[in-house]
Amino acid sequence: MIPDNVIRQQCENRNSFYLYEERVMLERIAQLRHHFKDIDFLFSVKANPAPAVLDRVFGSGLGADAASPAEVMLARERGVKKENILYSAPGKDVKEIEAALPYSTVVADSIDEVSRINDAAGRLGMKAKIGLRINPGFTFSGNRRGGAPEKFGIDIEQAVAKLPDFEKLENIEIDGIHVHLRSQELDTAVIARYYERLLKSAADFAEALGRPPGFIDLGSGMGIPFGPGDTEVDTKRLGETVTSFRKIFSEKLAGTRIMIESGRFICGEAGLYCTKVMDRKVSRGKTFVFLHSTLNGFARPSYEMAARYFCAGGDPGGYEPLFTTENAFEFIALTDSREVETVTLVGNLCTNTDVIAEDISMPKLRCGDILVVTNAGCYGATLTPFAFSSFGRPAELFLRTDGTVTET
Amino acid sequence: MIPDNVIRQQCENRNSFYLYEERVMLERIAQLRHHFKDIDFLFSVKANPAPAVLDRVFGSGLGADAASPAEVMLARERGVKKENILYSAPGKDVKEIEAALPYSTVVADSIDEVSRINDAAGRLGMKAKIGLRINPGFTFSGNRRGGAPEKFGIDIEQAVAKLPDFEKLENIEIDGIHVHLRSQELDTAVIARYYERLLKSAADFAEALGRPPGFIDLGSGMGIPFGPGDTEVDTKRLGETVTSFRKIFSEKLAGTRIMIESGRFICGEAGLYCTKVMDRKVSRGKTFVFLHSTLNGFARPSYEMAARYFCAGGDPGGYEPLFTTENAFEFIALTDSREVETVTLVGNLCTNTDVIAEDISMPKLRCGDILVVTNAGCYGATLTPFAFSSFGRPAELFLRTDGTVTET
Repeated sequence: MIPDNVIRQQCENRNSFYLYEERVMLERIAQLRHHFKDIDFLFSVKANPAPAVLDRVFGSGLGADAASPAEVMLARERGVKKENILYSAPGKDVKEIEAALPYSTVVADSIDEVSRINDAAGRLGMKAKIGLRINPGFTFSGNRRGGAPEKFGIDIEQAVAKLPDFEKLENIEIDGIHVHLRSQELDTAVIARYYERLLKSAADFAEALGRPPGFIDLGSGMGIPFGPGDTEVDTKRLGETVTSFRKIFSEKLAGTRIMIESGRFICGEAGLYCTKVMDRKVSRGKTFVFLHSTLNGFARPSYEMAARYFCAGGDPGGYEPLFTTENAFEFIALTDSREVETVTLVGNLCTNTDVIAEDISMPKLRCGDILVVTNAGCYGATLTPFAFSSFGRPAELFLRTDGTVTET
Repeated sequence: MIPDNVIRQQCENRNSFYLYEERVMLERIAQLRHHFKDIDFLFSVKANPAPAVLDRVFGSGLGADAASPAEVMLARERGVKKENILYSAPGKDVKEIEAALPYSTVVADSIDEVSRINDAAGRLGMKAKIGLRINPGFTFSGNRRGGAPEKFGIDIEQAVAKLPDFEKLENIEIDGIHVHLRSQELDTAVIARYYERLLKSAADFAEALGRPPGFIDLGSGMGIPFGPGDTEVDTKRLGETVTSFRKIFSEKLAGTRIMIESGRFICGEAGLYCTKVMDRKVSRGKTFVFLHSTLNGFARPSYEMAARYFCAGGDPGGYEPLFTTENAFEFIALTDSREVETVTLVGNLCTNTDVIAEDISMPKLRCGDILVVTNAGCYGATLTPFAFSSFGRPAELFLRTDGTVTET
């Protein structure tokens, strides 16, 4: 945890802000690189596109998992090379493809998109090495034989059947495949089986292609602990899994680059959201503490309360990235108060949905005190409706390992 | 409905946009004014702060219900006078109060805020006429005797007890009260009873105050039809209700201005969200149609799907403004296609939560076709996380009664 005085100092002229910690991100990147050998990691820009975060992550040599032409350019501007930027998203039109092709490896999300990329490459006068996003013949947890219908990618059986047609297209070359089925999984064994099935599937695809693909992007899966009972993923074991199955398929995947995407794993725990107590009141026996910009500053805790409301006491079930699990955010009061009270934490918007905790036990908070919310480093700013009530977006601050803090 | 060619024209250089219709807003304003006599309507800025919408609404002489200092200034910049701007929101700090006091009637949301406003007025060297937001001794539907604990306002019994203290404060004068308990109600009888109780409560408050208050803001309540079975509120009957109860309490409320807030009633049905079909695919028997910027362009339909997911087949129950009711948005395909198919409508973000309809029957949509979503005029842009995947926010267009369309 960041020292209180660092946070207090930033609160002097601000009522709410994000604080991202460089140290944590660097540790996560080092951990992944240490445990996975010969793997290229791609940072999922959408998890946290704050400029200082991208500077740091791409400055560390990671590639980019880009979900829009704008995200391609965010990586490009930071010196990430074309072969290390994968632009994979559904529903791309010709203009978006043309904007991205010179600077990234474009991954086709549908059969029609393959032709669209071919057309765009033709207009640009280039031969483009592209990827295919594949919907494999299995599900992430493996509970459905033959796979499921999916929004993302081309069903593997369709992709294989279409390969001869794709190979005839003049302006593209099928260079790799991309699979991604889940972002937040904590069961190491489930992720390991996913990698195993995926590498086997990639080897089958290589056989259909008639050559080892240039790359396979295994997507993501590695989650971070959110709720109180959550445990960390065993990245060492996952790294060993990939290495061993890569060996098994070393012939069919000779020279194939293996990539893994990671967003929340790198930056999720590196972010705090800090908000000031604006007011408090007791209404008919219930104590309310008012915080600055919750739903309109860091929306995920409010979305958690919405999920609880709708499921009415049942188990909401994960709905990433809007909702992960109950009690996914810790609320830390920066106060020396030893008095404890039961409070409902609400925001300063004119709506009852602007609430982040109901009847919880907390040290007594006074006006001007600071409340810190954890796990705010991923899908924080990007999932928040900043326009609500025109308060403007909270600052995003970056705490460097040397102790300096800059606005980003 | 706006003619197809008007929408098609705007789609030529855009993949998604809002279109707000002046005619509908003017009709709603005229309807309210026709049915409510001697009532001052305040427009709830947060429902739709698009510049052209505010120009039109404030140009029609409505006052402003502002929820932040920025919203006060949005009204002020459009010539709305101080006495017609009510700034009522919880958790205001001294700086916010100081920024708003010269240009608006500030409504205190808690006992501590009354002192805070007094301090701010003192520093500004002014005597401020202020309001008190009151949590009355009843609930909106009247199902809880004595009222409920509420995030908003000062419990009426506390307010009355504190009046002598408030009256001693040098820099303020208690000039009015504000009550608001619900925004989206379609049962005319429920709203009428709310007005009745509220005017009686205001008369009691006037007695405690020892003089008729300068104003009473009755808040809102009047909803609009969202779901297929919804009916319109009977504004004529509501106007008559207010008039008759005002007469009953004419002595205690002599000269008191009555205000009513309205956001969604004026602009909710005046807005469409238009989005282009970017791609389509069939995955293992399921047909997906990809639209531009849904969760990240107009989020409420995606929030509806989230509510359905969490309640797992049960009745989600309203959770305004995030969620109103099931099937709250009509999806109109601008196509001559007579072929009908079962489709799942998804957006172009890399998340499965970016879905607005599952397995519905629609005319067959092709790439480039336009899908129009209704009821997008309120809490559309303001509730949407535009930053997701860096696509940028969709344009907001304004269709004037003379047929011209301008970007706002």
